[in-house]
Amino acid sequence: MIDTDALVIGAGPTGLFQAFQLGLLGLSVQLVDALPQAGGQCLALYPDKPIYDIPGVPVCTGRELTARLLEQLRPIPAGLHFGHEVCTLQPQDDGRFVVGTAVGLTFSTRSVCIAAGVGAFTPRKLKVPGLVAHEQRQVFHHPDDLAPFVGQRVVVVGGDEAALARAAWLAEQPQHPVVTLLHRRDQFSAEAALLDHIAHLRAAGRLQVVVGQITDATEDAARLTAVAVLGLDGQTTPVLLDQLIVCQGLSPRLGPIADWGLVMERKLLPVDTATFETATPGVYAVGDINTYAGKRKLILCGFHEATLAAHAVHARLHPQTPGPLLYTTSSTVLQRRLGLID
Amino acid sequence: MIDTDALVIGAGPTGLFQAFQLGLLGLSVQLVDALPQAGGQCLALYPDKPIYDIPGVPVCTGRELTARLLEQLRPIPAGLHFGHEVCTLQPQDDGRFVVGTAVGLTFSTRSVCIAAGVGAFTPRKLKVPGLVAHEQRQVFHHPDDLAPFVGQRVVVVGGDEAALARAAWLAEQPQHPVVTLLHRRDQFSAEAALLDHIAHLRAAGRLQVVVGQITDATEDAARLTAVAVLGLDGQTTPVLLDQLIVCQGLSPRLGPIADWGLVMERKLLPVDTATFETATPGVYAVGDINTYAGKRKLILCGFHEATLAAHAVHARLHPQTPGPLLYTTSSTVLQRRLGLID
Repeated sequence: MIDTDALVIGAGPTGLFQAFQLGLLGLSVQLVDALPQAGGQCLALYPDKPIYDIPGVPVCTGRELTARLLEQLRPIPAGLHFGHEVCTLQPQDDGRFVVGTAVGLTFSTRSVCIAAGVGAFTPRKLKVPGLVAHEQRQVFHHPDDLAPFVGQRVVVVGGDEAALARAAWLAEQPQHPVVTLLHRRDQFSAEAALLDHIAHLRAAGRLQVVVGQITDATEDAARLTAVAVLGLDGQTTPVLLDQLIVCQGLSPRLGPIADWGLVMERKLLPVDTATFETATPGVYAVGDINTYAGKRKLILCGFHEATLAAHAVHARLHPQTPGPLLYTTSSTVLQRRLGLID
Repeated sequence: MIDTDALVIGAGPTGLFQAFQLGLLGLSVQLVDALPQAGGQCLALYPDKPIYDIPGVPVCTGRELTARLLEQLRPIPAGLHFGHEVCTLQPQDDGRFVVGTAVGLTFSTRSVCIAAGVGAFTPRKLKVPGLVAHEQRQVFHHPDDLAPFVGQRVVVVGGDEAALARAAWLAEQPQHPVVTLLHRRDQFSAEAALLDHIAHLRAAGRLQVVVGQITDATEDAARLTAVAVLGLDGQTTPVLLDQLIVCQGLSPRLGPIADWGLVMERKLLPVDTATFETATPGVYAVGDINTYAGKRKLILCGFHEATLAAHAVHARLHPQTPGPLLYTTSSTVLQRRLGLID
């Protein structure tokens, strides 16, 4: 059980800045995200597309903005937990909350800031009966570590950068059998260099492309041995395999947030614009997941919301010490928290 | 008379971003500031001090932030008017506003966004009778162009960078008589290089320092000929001069805004957080000059306020076309306004 002043759910731009502001105010903070890295929607949906309306940053990609916010957060001793989807939130009699993740991480926190955007980004799965039973043994979604797959017959499903980069990496390994890249058409979406690299690996016989969709799975002694692929010609062909890597993109789902007993309006959390607190005292909502009069779903608005929420959390936890608003430019207290002075 | 959709009063960070957001929404915009350049309080009070809480910008000075916001504003065809203090704001029967500046610039605008911070920054003046009559002829405050002073006997009053840089520049001019730097003590506040440079000019006899305060002025045939300086020893000495340059810093004053008939609370403009509109329809207030429940005087909050205000101005002027929220990352309409595509 990790004890903290504030738990931030979601490590997109708003969640990262929420953690920064909480830390700047001297509060302990833990940050949890379902994705394996920071950046949220911004990195999942448009990592390399330019954004032009971040104030003071005339242009940056989602990836660059994430890197900038992580750099800004660096001096704050926040606990970062990636790859953890928050599942349960239970208010306690003493005003605290016990928050649990899908894989058993538990927090006892004095406040919760929900910066979950459009929900937790989770891998889109193949809708094929018979595959679920093999997940985490022979069926993997967006795996980060490919070393365990080397030397096995691998089928990678998908047509974007995530699929192509994994297929290419495996095809480059010495003695690795031919990698199968399975996609619904023989056309891929990635940067030119990666497309060229894939073409080169195909020409060299290290990688083969199968066009079609998986319709069925074949087992032998509880092991997945092949998938049935329906081709464009209407024929179904078996493709033998040891491992299936699925990279069909990420899709957000509100998921368990809807089960926490919070007041919601059309899958959004209504908040008070003075504090960004939800109808549940101690639970705040910032960024795309909240709603209020005038709300615009813009990253820069999330930064403001996170800032006022941080001040409200501080006021809730330290009602006796409101004090004046401090500025990073002039306050030695804040500069010490940023590690700028001893 | 300049006709516009929106007039922004104040070119600090919030005013600059206000103009950007208005332009992004396709509205015509004019921006006016009393100071001779953009940056407002940020540049007037802490141009070289680092700021650490601009989201996505781990560190930048007030000068750098201003440069970044000007760069961001560049594609927007906003009219920029520096050195103009807005004096009058008169609502018209047709819902427009006629706005006038101290030196006779007049706007007819459909909306007004007040981003005036703590008020207009104006040079702090010497409280010495007899000097006012000579302003703009022999007494100048923070003049930008020093060429007209070359060859004359100049007294520069002040102890900070603004005073020292001007005194040093004049002292470097060939054939220029010895420059007098007048300050209440023989201690100056500027970067080390400038302090060294001043010491060098003093040692070379190009610049002399007089310690004391001006208490009186001497005239001859309506010309200012000398000032009386009360030294630390209690003695008063005349200092002969042709020109007096006063650099005693800038001081904000709310000024005429208080006379426009707007509802104010403790010199601040209460606003609705959905629109950042004041009690006067069509007049919006953003940044340090506004107040609402939860308000924190932070630059990043001004960015959010300016953004919602821009959307509210757009809704007021185009009530028939609300449309969906567009994103700079994906909208060709916005990208065209930013000059990114034809």
